[in-house]
Amino acid sequence: MAEAEQKLATGAARIDFATDPSRYRHWKLAVEGKVATLVLDVDEKGALFAGYELKLNSYDLGVDIELADAFERIRFEHPQVRVVLLRSGKPRVFCAGANIRMLAGATHAHKVNFCKFTNETRNAIEDASAGSGVRTICVINGTAAGGGYELALAADHIILVDDGSSAVSLPEVPLLAVLPGTGGLTRITDKRKVRRDRADVFCTTEEGIRGKRAVEWRLVDEVAPQSRLEALIAARVREFAAGSPPPCGDGSGVGAVPAGAFGADVSDAPPRASPIRGEGEEMAAPHAMVPAASEGTEGREGVGITLTPLERKLGEDRREYKYVSVAFDRAGRVATIILRGPASPPPNSAAEMMSQGAAFWPLQVARELDDAVLDVRLNELDVAAIVFKSEGEPRAVLGYDLFLDRQGRHWLAREVRLKWKRVLKRIDLTSHSLVALIEPGSCFAGTLAEIVFAADRSYMLIGSRDGDNRPPAAIIVGDVNLSGALAMSNGLDRLRTRFLGEPEAHERVRHVAGEMLDAKAAEALGLVTFALDDLDWDDEIRVFLEERASFSPDSLTGLEANLRFGGPETMETKIFGRLTAWQNWIFQRPNATGEGGALSRYGTGRKPEFDTRRT
Amino acid sequence: MAEAEQKLATGAARIDFATDPSRYRHWKLAVEGKVATLVLDVDEKGALFAGYELKLNSYDLGVDIELADAFERIRFEHPQVRVVLLRSGKPRVFCAGANIRMLAGATHAHKVNFCKFTNETRNAIEDASAGSGVRTICVINGTAAGGGYELALAADHIILVDDGSSAVSLPEVPLLAVLPGTGGLTRITDKRKVRRDRADVFCTTEEGIRGKRAVEWRLVDEVAPQSRLEALIAARVREFAAGSPPPCGDGSGVGAVPAGAFGADVSDAPPRASPIRGEGEEMAAPHAMVPAASEGTEGREGVGITLTPLERKLGEDRREYKYVSVAFDRAGRVATIILRGPASPPPNSAAEMMSQGAAFWPLQVARELDDAVLDVRLNELDVAAIVFKSEGEPRAVLGYDLFLDRQGRHWLAREVRLKWKRVLKRIDLTSHSLVALIEPGSCFAGTLAEIVFAADRSYMLIGSRDGDNRPPAAIIVGDVNLSGALAMSNGLDRLRTRFLGEPEAHERVRHVAGEMLDAKAAEALGLVTFALDDLDWDDEIRVFLEERASFSPDSLTGLEANLRFGGPETMETKIFGRLTAWQNWIFQRPNATGEGGALSRYGTGRKPEFDTRRT
Repeated sequence: MAEAEQKLATGAARIDFATDPSRYRHWKLAVEGKVATLVLDVDEKGALFAGYELKLNSYDLGVDIELADAFERIRFEHPQVRVVLLRSGKPRVFCAGANIRMLAGATHAHKVNFCKFTNETRNAIEDASAGSGVRTICVINGTAAGGGYELALAADHIILVDDGSSAVSLPEVPLLAVLPGTGGLTRITDKRKVRRDRADVFCTTEEGIRGKRAVEWRLVDEVAPQSRLEALIAARVREFAAGSPPPCGDGSGVGAVPAGAFGADVSDAPPRASPIRGEGEEMAAPHAMVPAASEGTEGREGVGITLTPLERKLGEDRREYKYVSVAFDRAGRVATIILRGPASPPPNSAAEMMSQGAAFWPLQVARELDDAVLDVRLNELDVAAIVFKSEGEPRAVLGYDLFLDRQGRHWLAREVRLKWKRVLKRIDLTSHSLVALIEPGSCFAGTLAEIVFAADRSYMLIGSRDGDNRPPAAIIVGDVNLSGALAMSNGLDRLRTRFLGEPEAHERVRHVAGEMLDAKAAEALGLVTFALDDLDWDDEIRVFLEERASFSPDSLTGLEANLRFGGPETMETKIFGRLTAWQNWIFQRPNATGEGGALSRYGTGRKPEFDTRRT
Repeated sequence: MAEAEQKLATGAARIDFATDPSRYRHWKLAVEGKVATLVLDVDEKGALFAGYELKLNSYDLGVDIELADAFERIRFEHPQVRVVLLRSGKPRVFCAGANIRMLAGATHAHKVNFCKFTNETRNAIEDASAGSGVRTICVINGTAAGGGYELALAADHIILVDDGSSAVSLPEVPLLAVLPGTGGLTRITDKRKVRRDRADVFCTTEEGIRGKRAVEWRLVDEVAPQSRLEALIAARVREFAAGSPPPCGDGSGVGAVPAGAFGADVSDAPPRASPIRGEGEEMAAPHAMVPAASEGTEGREGVGITLTPLERKLGEDRREYKYVSVAFDRAGRVATIILRGPASPPPNSAAEMMSQGAAFWPLQVARELDDAVLDVRLNELDVAAIVFKSEGEPRAVLGYDLFLDRQGRHWLAREVRLKWKRVLKRIDLTSHSLVALIEPGSCFAGTLAEIVFAADRSYMLIGSRDGDNRPPAAIIVGDVNLSGALAMSNGLDRLRTRFLGEPEAHERVRHVAGEMLDAKAAEALGLVTFALDDLDWDDEIRVFLEERASFSPDSLTGLEANLRFGGPETMETKIFGRLTAWQNWIFQRPNATGEGGALSRYGTGRKPEFDTRRT
């Protein structure tokens, strides 16, 4: 196995997640009124790591970082956009999927982290649809193989050119001895609901499925000959642009029930557009996906805000943002992330929030936190535990939550909440132990309290420390912690997941919403794991972190991936639980990544050699 | 990694799943009226493989084969049993879990198959409760560590001795760098609903949790000092024996909604008995688990039937049972399992069914099929695909289904259905490709048709073959395929899972229930993957099976584990999907099974060496 770290092509020491359209090398983003066109035109020479070229619109993490950025910008900078048209800038190929040479040369850890990030990006595309009413139409003009088709699967509507050669395929099993690792298997069975035996045929047919059969098998929504393609696209864009109102309401319920949630009754599943099979006939609008226009939300047609670059000071052992600091204790294998509360009260109006733009505290801290977490994930593999602390005034944090609640009908308030929802999900899915330390002077209230509930364990200090005149630690549960607005991937918010076995405990917490809760109260309510006094604090925390660092990192990853997601499963948790875990297993198997494995030998002209035992 | 196959201690070439109480080496089964007592008293010298001893009531597959057999016998031979009392025959230890030396020396494939079988056995204990009203009370008098506690978790009620040392624990992560692999993580979060941060503490605390804290944390239901233990047990046995009526009704709905199914609403979860904390006080009956007695089912208090030994002729390339034949094509890596329909019409009455006993066709074929599938799983790892065929008269098969439907209130009819449900689930969870070939003279109707729907792919021959005067292939969908009686682990039956995206297709199938469907009709209805005529048949099947054998076995396992389980997830699918997949990954990681891994070094006195990168 090639476990040597690959070198970044730029010569930099760390993968950086910050980018903007002026720096994109692989995507072209153009916005015209309600329509954003996002063209994938990968620069072969623009690989993230040295040693491979990105042929045939194949991608690596660098390409996906730009895609993730593009969707963030569409939502914040162009809030009037209702349709994203996703297509290829290259002839005869939509996207060949994840670059195989990159995968073959990557460490196991990078493969796993790469898949996780690309999955989060696909989920964010679906979140833009479910949460913000931004529908994606994907046009496949050529080959969409593996990760290329998986990208299409994240769209609301897939159009395939019917030219006798364009096809969709998931050739990973026959070609590479791995799985489609970006949600493909789950989305064909659970989103598109392809019949399972057809899915079996599809996933074992290297060349994929073309034309009308692709529609009949529910793999794409419609096909069109090349001659009619542009007219069809124009018609679909018009329909989707006219038809998709953004979700509205008070903001708190946004996304409370994820699109992929399963009930026991299969009829709970979201309806799909009926496949439209005719090529020449007048095409019916896919009503199920385009609810009739409603009043929309405030500020909808207004201009967006600019996601200005994050200001970061990066040192050897520190990362400093305005509201977030990260300190690395490399000997102890701990990263400490400190979140700072707002420096000023919330704006007086939506207009003021708009004028603050990216500097609006909840948005800025969310973006900084997201960047910090991604940095730890990809660049600091040795970290055993992330310790979260906070500094500030709990009531000031809650003030911003109340402002967001009140402005729930404003698009920017909604987008800020949805951004927090995504950042918190990213934390849930981070394979480092998560610890919250709640100390005097901290401000874990409302949205920030959610980090306490996301932690594997939380410790809260009782009373004050000698010589420290900051107020004793207090946490405040806000409406945002109870409304489902920040639901986990499993469709439940963190407090409901926490109290699965004790609904009465959830009820007790609801009754103290808005109150400052000290350590003993928080412990009695079940909101923190342990309340400790100053005498025990340092030793307990030290011993715990040392112990955590002494355990096998792999077994902790498996443990946490199981304990964090009690209760119902959704398409998202299936992707991150079932599919990802199997893929990680396969990524370790000699049949894929051993010397004679299919992934290692791909393109060498030598056939893979398999251990034929089924396991 | 120790990938050499371990040698069976008996010198036999194959693991055998047939046993009976007279041959048990590790369990003692005593039945007295409504109460079965099952005592775990492991014979240290009775290990399945050479090279280790089963100290401290630790177990290997051999111990679990006896446990699985014991529960089958309780249900069929002692149908009056309402309570199983599960306890240890050794002082100061309940069960130390899976034997670590066995695990350290086992091949990866055996570890995986071992965990799968033990999981199925735990699920069967829960199935006896949900399906047959047989409640299990587990008494932990000493240590219940790892798999020992996981065994207890399968019970309806757990009593822990409060003696200052008896504890429950899941020490796998701190001690062995693997996960609790027999459902433990899923059952603590989803069955017992332990708060997730407490679960984190519990699973990282080597010595486990004792006494009242174990009750408070929902890990056990009650504790009692040694002096009061026997009185408490007697009281609980009386309550459970008096209170649990077997489920009744027409049999078709039995188990349609699995106990572990999740709805979006957490309140769907089955209620747990309230923990009873007092030691001395009068103890309230745990009402939630003991519904008031109702009328019960017919034949309830009658005698059981004897599960006579399966008659098998075992050859080099064949296994012959009365109604099942297995042929191994080792070069082609295919095992063909032929199921034969009944030789005579169904009994005229329940009494006649009782007098046929284990020879009653649906029961005998289920037991034979189960044995055959387990044999392939554990002893024929090289098999790429299992091909299912059948021989007989479809209407004759359906006749037995109708008989079972009519006798749905009789305990034996119900148990036979539940047995089929378990066998079919075992097939769903078998990591070989599953293929159904439906040819002239076959009898895939009703219960046997379910095997077609369990297959990854099915092929059906159109018309007859030259010189073959058997009737053309036909399948019949019966009520049993539509009622949920044979639901998969995901809580849906196979046809509902198949038609997740096309409920109208399910409706069409419902309308033709009971009809003989030829190949073209079956294909048009979506019941089979492909209908082929005689000209294409041989080539198509040959090419398909060769192709299947050419793929990486690991990637096929991952693919099938994802495609087979579309739709909702339950506790069972979480155990087999999420938990098992993570465990399999960890079993491959050097930190567990490498030369310096914790599992390899356990007991050597040398500390494990970990790659500290989190993945």
